[in-house]
Amino acid sequence: MKYSLTTQGMLERAFRFFPYQEVVSRTLTGIHKYTYADYYRRVNQLAHALRQLGVNRGDKVATFGWNDHWHLEAYFAIPSMGAVLHTVNIRLPEEHIVYTINHAADNVLLVSADQLPIILKVRDQLTTVRHIVVWGDDAPEGSGVLQYEALLAEQPDRYPWPEDLDEWEPAGMCFTSATTGNPKGVVYAHRALYLHGKMLGMADTIGLSMRDTVMPVVPMFHVNAWGIPFAAVFLGCRQVLPGPRPTPADLVQLISQERVTISAAVPTVWLGVLNELERESRDISSLSRICVGGAALPRALAQAFQEKFGRPMLHVYGMTEATPLVTVGTLKPHLEQLSPEEQQDYRDKQGLLVPGIEMRLVDDEGNDVPWDGTSIGEVWFRGPWIASEYYQDERSSEAFIDGWYHSGDLGVVDSEGYLKLVDRTKDVIKSGGEWISSVDLENAIMGVPGVAEAVVVACPHPKWDERPLACVVAKPEAAGSLTKEAILNGLRQRFPSWWIPDDVVFLDEIPKTGTGKFDKKLLRARFSSHYQIAAAK
Amino acid sequence: MKYSLTTQGMLERAFRFFPYQEVVSRTLTGIHKYTYADYYRRVNQLAHALRQLGVNRGDKVATFGWNDHWHLEAYFAIPSMGAVLHTVNIRLPEEHIVYTINHAADNVLLVSADQLPIILKVRDQLTTVRHIVVWGDDAPEGSGVLQYEALLAEQPDRYPWPEDLDEWEPAGMCFTSATTGNPKGVVYAHRALYLHGKMLGMADTIGLSMRDTVMPVVPMFHVNAWGIPFAAVFLGCRQVLPGPRPTPADLVQLISQERVTISAAVPTVWLGVLNELERESRDISSLSRICVGGAALPRALAQAFQEKFGRPMLHVYGMTEATPLVTVGTLKPHLEQLSPEEQQDYRDKQGLLVPGIEMRLVDDEGNDVPWDGTSIGEVWFRGPWIASEYYQDERSSEAFIDGWYHSGDLGVVDSEGYLKLVDRTKDVIKSGGEWISSVDLENAIMGVPGVAEAVVVACPHPKWDERPLACVVAKPEAAGSLTKEAILNGLRQRFPSWWIPDDVVFLDEIPKTGTGKFDKKLLRARFSSHYQIAAAK
Repeated sequence: MKYSLTTQGMLERAFRFFPYQEVVSRTLTGIHKYTYADYYRRVNQLAHALRQLGVNRGDKVATFGWNDHWHLEAYFAIPSMGAVLHTVNIRLPEEHIVYTINHAADNVLLVSADQLPIILKVRDQLTTVRHIVVWGDDAPEGSGVLQYEALLAEQPDRYPWPEDLDEWEPAGMCFTSATTGNPKGVVYAHRALYLHGKMLGMADTIGLSMRDTVMPVVPMFHVNAWGIPFAAVFLGCRQVLPGPRPTPADLVQLISQERVTISAAVPTVWLGVLNELERESRDISSLSRICVGGAALPRALAQAFQEKFGRPMLHVYGMTEATPLVTVGTLKPHLEQLSPEEQQDYRDKQGLLVPGIEMRLVDDEGNDVPWDGTSIGEVWFRGPWIASEYYQDERSSEAFIDGWYHSGDLGVVDSEGYLKLVDRTKDVIKSGGEWISSVDLENAIMGVPGVAEAVVVACPHPKWDERPLACVVAKPEAAGSLTKEAILNGLRQRFPSWWIPDDVVFLDEIPKTGTGKFDKKLLRARFSSHYQIAAAK
Repeated sequence: MKYSLTTQGMLERAFRFFPYQEVVSRTLTGIHKYTYADYYRRVNQLAHALRQLGVNRGDKVATFGWNDHWHLEAYFAIPSMGAVLHTVNIRLPEEHIVYTINHAADNVLLVSADQLPIILKVRDQLTTVRHIVVWGDDAPEGSGVLQYEALLAEQPDRYPWPEDLDEWEPAGMCFTSATTGNPKGVVYAHRALYLHGKMLGMADTIGLSMRDTVMPVVPMFHVNAWGIPFAAVFLGCRQVLPGPRPTPADLVQLISQERVTISAAVPTVWLGVLNELERESRDISSLSRICVGGAALPRALAQAFQEKFGRPMLHVYGMTEATPLVTVGTLKPHLEQLSPEEQQDYRDKQGLLVPGIEMRLVDDEGNDVPWDGTSIGEVWFRGPWIASEYYQDERSSEAFIDGWYHSGDLGVVDSEGYLKLVDRTKDVIKSGGEWISSVDLENAIMGVPGVAEAVVVACPHPKWDERPLACVVAKPEAAGSLTKEAILNGLRQRFPSWWIPDDVVFLDEIPKTGTGKFDKKLLRARFSSHYQIAAAK
């Protein structure tokens, strides 16, 4: 049957079968709760309002906000009416915010009240935005900004969703930061969001279910919060959206109070939650899956969760170009028979390819390298939710070649098929012609007592081309007492001598990118002469 | 990305990630075991062999066999090479076997050794079959029949699967019995098999997983064993295939010995298993999901499983036109808080629509009827694995109208969205202008002590147009002692007086159709004058 896989069917399911299910949303003014029946009505009203503002099929509508019910309304109203949801990353530098909105040619912009000042500041540079609509607050007098609630208030509660919406039409759009230059845009077809959402409901991935209360901490303004909001509506999950800048205490409070069963966040967030729980004990026993990704998972963090709460963390891996998930660290049943230490070796890895995607591990010459757990290759992907290009961007040809997406991540795959990343192609350290994994070193350093954060970068070296340099932030209580020797000794037991960084520099903090990742590019630039200078001394 | 959803990707996953996983197959000569690595090699060899026999893209290849590893090899080799797998129903009458093979224009026929005599008997009437290949035995001398193992033996173990296979190309084909005339053919696109398979892996359906050992008792010659073999390979499940004519003792032995975690069968099979377990106690505690469908689930059966083994049965519903599953009786979490009796009321129903399908409940005039648990309507479906026509058949226009498949099943949907079938449109009893559900009466009669099987059919009646007639088979120990009054008394407490059958006839057995269902058409014909005669007396 010629039936299109679109967000319309996903939305309809929540309304038809789970109208009583709750969406809990933390806002600047408190906890907001309503049901999918309320949600559905407002999604329909939003579509009417956007239509009234002149949004047509294929037009881009930008969002600039937090994980809350307003954003969730945009998630379904915009694509289901045939427009394109562009979730602008609010953490980008201003110039990139302007670039992404203009490059996407966004038509209308929906913005959280507390983020409105940023938008008003750059407003004159936005060349395509015709209307700005503010969520959850009065628009400033005379600003020409429209108020979301007022716009929705008078709208009919059923929108005539276009029946001819095709699954190949664009539904969503995100930008990903580039090493140099402007962010690169990725467009998601309805089909990709649908198939990715269905994948998240599979027992062997993260198994999202109508039994779940799901709390995505990963932001809705970045890679669609890993696609969780789309899947959660589709599958009738109860949702808890943690709102603006949630602190670890906010998150623990929500988990405990709303009995969250599954949540997803980057490692630093879980580290904060762990510290908060050490500060004040709370019942988080409802949490059966603790998903972590976006950066390598420090073993110490995973072990702490396992020991203190009897729950393994579930490592996932993805990227903007992949809608985003490609692997999940679910253990095969026979691996659960291994010793806790051996199990953790598997759980540390990025995981097993999710059903539906294909993966290759390829060397510099384009040959497949064996899945033997030691041979390093670049990871390539193809599948129904992998992008085929960057949006109107010449850089597409660097990453999308002959039907495969070249991820730029270097990894090894073991004989069970578990992927372990060892580096970014651009972050790997080439010393004397051999590769050194910055990620492995960083994970080991983060396990040294007293270390809060660590990054290892390549520094040009007069003899070896490049040598590793460790940049370390000490925990407050260890500041002053943590030594270079303590750190390097921690590494000497585990790595060959030529992997050991030649030096350690202590920093007050590691600079972060717009998406919250360690900014290695900046550190490389800052310390580019470190070993030259050291050698000259 | 333009990536096609085909059986190729599903097959590749089993080989890449689960090469050590076992396929256990009961054959005429004993238990056969091999791994997905072995399986993959033979699937490739089979494709080579078929290519050598002249099978081209789009050609139909028929199978005529049991649930075993040979059949499973055909399940992936045929569609993955671009040909079409036509699973011929071995239980059809000979004339329909001939019709379906000729109507599909099957090119090659793969047949189980014990079924070969049937094929040889009708061979002269087969107008398109060029080669007959026999599984698992020597071909009779001089018969011109090819031997499967000999054909495969010399083939290379990697087949160059066509890279341009499109997801809309036909992959499979089944026929469904019609009320009158020849069976009707349904063609499954690759996309349908893929999306249906993915659905079976979702936590909220039957949650097939790499953790499972799955045993489909529902036949691979009929509606693809509910699509389980496709999903099981895709998801890397261990499989147990119960082979030719498994007895309840065989099934119990396999469950217990191979630690089966999930199985699927029609109610009569589970009834046999229950009796077998009462005869001789065995450990079936590995079985976490007992799927039942294909006919209404008698409450007494479900309760017996619940009471004796602490496991609810999982009711599913589907049809050839739907690849086949459309509903699964998984309880919503809040319904699990109800009393055991109230829970069973939900579990008795056909269940909740699986994610991805749309459903309507429609009256005679084509208006949607409310989902209130009492309003009856015909059930309509549409979605990515619902067919759009019968294969080259004028009867398509009766069932596929304006993008919806009209199932011919009458049901009610409650406010939670659970579907309960009350009848086939053609089986419903119209008494004095009101509808009486034959299914509800049958289920109640089957709960009366001493009743083995029961069917209620409409009989023409001089005053009320139609009145229900109960046809009952007594259990051996109750034969002679079971009375009409005992049966009708059992109904009087539960149904309005005008629903109560005017008469009960005792039969030695209920006639069955080719697919093992009660043959109501035959009974209606046989008893068409029953009330006229009674009235005339």
